[in-house]
Amino acid sequence: MTDHADIHTLMMGLGERARLAARGLAIAPTDQKDQALREAAALLRANVEGILAANQKDVAAAKANGVGAAFIDRLTLDAQRIEAIADGLEQIALLNDPVGTKLAEIRRPNGLVIDRVRTPLGVIGVIFESRPNVTADAGALCLKAGNAAILRGGSDSFHSSRAIHQCLVDGLEAAGLSKDAIQLVPVTDREAVGKMLQGLNGNIDVIVPRGGKGLVGRVQQEARVPVFAHLEGICHIVVDQSADLDMAEEIILNAKMRRTGICGAAETVLIDQKIAPLFVPQMVDALMAKGCEVRGCTRTADLDDRVVAATEEDWSTEYLDAIISVRVVDDFDAALDHIAHYSSHHTEAILAENDEVVERFFREVDSAILMHNASTQFADGGEFGMGAEIGIATGKMHARGPVGVEQLTSFNYRVHGKGHTRP
Amino acid sequence: MTDHADIHTLMMGLGERARLAARGLAIAPTDQKDQALREAAALLRANVEGILAANQKDVAAAKANGVGAAFIDRLTLDAQRIEAIADGLEQIALLNDPVGTKLAEIRRPNGLVIDRVRTPLGVIGVIFESRPNVTADAGALCLKAGNAAILRGGSDSFHSSRAIHQCLVDGLEAAGLSKDAIQLVPVTDREAVGKMLQGLNGNIDVIVPRGGKGLVGRVQQEARVPVFAHLEGICHIVVDQSADLDMAEEIILNAKMRRTGICGAAETVLIDQKIAPLFVPQMVDALMAKGCEVRGCTRTADLDDRVVAATEEDWSTEYLDAIISVRVVDDFDAALDHIAHYSSHHTEAILAENDEVVERFFREVDSAILMHNASTQFADGGEFGMGAEIGIATGKMHARGPVGVEQLTSFNYRVHGKGHTRP
Repeated sequence: MTDHADIHTLMMGLGERARLAARGLAIAPTDQKDQALREAAALLRANVEGILAANQKDVAAAKANGVGAAFIDRLTLDAQRIEAIADGLEQIALLNDPVGTKLAEIRRPNGLVIDRVRTPLGVIGVIFESRPNVTADAGALCLKAGNAAILRGGSDSFHSSRAIHQCLVDGLEAAGLSKDAIQLVPVTDREAVGKMLQGLNGNIDVIVPRGGKGLVGRVQQEARVPVFAHLEGICHIVVDQSADLDMAEEIILNAKMRRTGICGAAETVLIDQKIAPLFVPQMVDALMAKGCEVRGCTRTADLDDRVVAATEEDWSTEYLDAIISVRVVDDFDAALDHIAHYSSHHTEAILAENDEVVERFFREVDSAILMHNASTQFADGGEFGMGAEIGIATGKMHARGPVGVEQLTSFNYRVHGKGHTRP
Repeated sequence: MTDHADIHTLMMGLGERARLAARGLAIAPTDQKDQALREAAALLRANVEGILAANQKDVAAAKANGVGAAFIDRLTLDAQRIEAIADGLEQIALLNDPVGTKLAEIRRPNGLVIDRVRTPLGVIGVIFESRPNVTADAGALCLKAGNAAILRGGSDSFHSSRAIHQCLVDGLEAAGLSKDAIQLVPVTDREAVGKMLQGLNGNIDVIVPRGGKGLVGRVQQEARVPVFAHLEGICHIVVDQSADLDMAEEIILNAKMRRTGICGAAETVLIDQKIAPLFVPQMVDALMAKGCEVRGCTRTADLDDRVVAATEEDWSTEYLDAIISVRVVDDFDAALDHIAHYSSHHTEAILAENDEVVERFFREVDSAILMHNASTQFADGGEFGMGAEIGIATGKMHARGPVGVEQLTSFNYRVHGKGHTRP
């Protein structure tokens, strides 16, 4: 389908049906939503063969297009990965339902009692790339929070997403919920994404992009509705002069090398000059032993000739690879200045034993997640006890940090009177 | 100044200075912010003559332009109103500082302790019309929450706003804070508003419009940054068949007639057909005795011949005047359908003694504020115990309902480790 008018009509229809479904979902009992998730999990397990066949089509087409190995790996499903997707749905069914939770109670002198209560957000648009599992994860999280979802998967995972989506739809219907609660955009045209970014005539409340910097950048640039996202995670670790250096070595190794490709991986280490002569060689030893390239400022390079000279560009680069940039700074304030300038406001860590320094770091660094004596790789909804996340947001509005079911809700005020009139 | 390049440079400079000031404000101690507010209050009192002289210029120009009496009333200051503005600043100084408040503590099995802590939002742009007091109120609320403010007042109140703003700036400097913490756009060109709506190159985090539907509509339409606002308050009152009818009469009178020009004033009453024959004449008596025009559906008009026939347009009209629309509905579900169709999602009330009906109303109506047996005119930050509000928001993102100092904050996560690495 490439006709503009057809795509417009198609997408507006998706939006209208989502809004209608959202009104029903907002009042759906927890049991019914959880039943839909469990039914979908059972259907995924019952349809492993069909899903793998659909996935084979996608993988074959992607290989024919000559994409890279990492891409093929993200795209490929096997029985174990399908089991993990089904298990993920059941885990989300086990989470507490955020809808209806009382967040605050205000008792006024005039006798009014005002409750602030969680409500669903409405309709959530999710735009993702070549990871078929996001179809299930994102759809399920939206559903749990009482929201309708409009999912737009990458064209490379089209058949896989469609097969998984069918299980979700059948699960919804088995539980007596509207099949429009989780809709998958049935065309691969890029124009469909543009329509979503415009908000489908007020029928999308928030967009969540899941994918690379190109996708997220386009969404942030063009969206006329709120976006929960992070463009990149340029995560810093500050090694204060009071740091326990053996602990620092272990944390930096973990923060960089545990998994280099995730947004919470560390990219830059800032080291106080007072400990640099001692710590730089120790750290470079450890990193290089694990196969990590170290790029450093001139002061770093002067301390260790295995260090490659860093350029200005390095301080703004999210390597997502076994490369790290290192800068020796005059003092703690210089470290804060570096972060204020180069950070992507995702996650930063302070390694220090001096409480005052930690306190200042927590108060003065304006990022979604701040760590003290812990690896930046803990920046993850699961590690925060949220059960699952749809992504990590670096914006300051509404959701910040890991976006779990609670962050996919809004709230309203419910005022209990006894015939109160305002004087 | 009308040169495009000049306005661009001017506005971008305001944005950059605001961002710098915000970094300082975010870590300013509560005492220092409160001192600035108290100093400003004292300066307002010390400069009553000068402020009144500036206001006289504005009022004279507005009268020469032939604006209406209500406009002149909003614009005009006197000694009493200036005292109220100064008092308002002192009240805001007395509020709890939201910055640094711990919102949640998560203790993980691995020993990580994760605090969710309030932080300022950053830079807030406030665009308002011909109400000089907003200069002080809005600037003070932003400051209390640790945010820098860029204020853009209506051209009609230009001299008054400037005189009040000078007191705020002098207060900031007396307390040792940056004078850029509260900036007033020094030109009246409409183009300056357009620049703010584009976000001043990322240097405005949220826009708050204060004014009529024309201003709010333009801001919502054009803004490329989040907006806290309500376009209108088409507030509904549902009179259930279980309602206490004398209480209903009193609440409807108050909700409509206490002040007809505020956003929380009721515009439409929906009456269950089972009680309509009894209640419609009683309610019309009471409303007409207070000078309120009643426009009704045919069923309402059939029950009382003083009722004017309502048109379709009436159901979507925010009268802000002594006019009310009334519809007799088949049942409670029909009332919910009417609200879902016509509501502006601001405030709605249910008058009922049946708990199940109240419960359903609270769960099923998707508006910022829901009232049970209370007047819609309680929709106000002061009445909610927030101390002061910068406005009421009907969006579902971040702030909903009255926007007080807490709603002008964000939050981040502060993770306390003891050398934790992620397995």
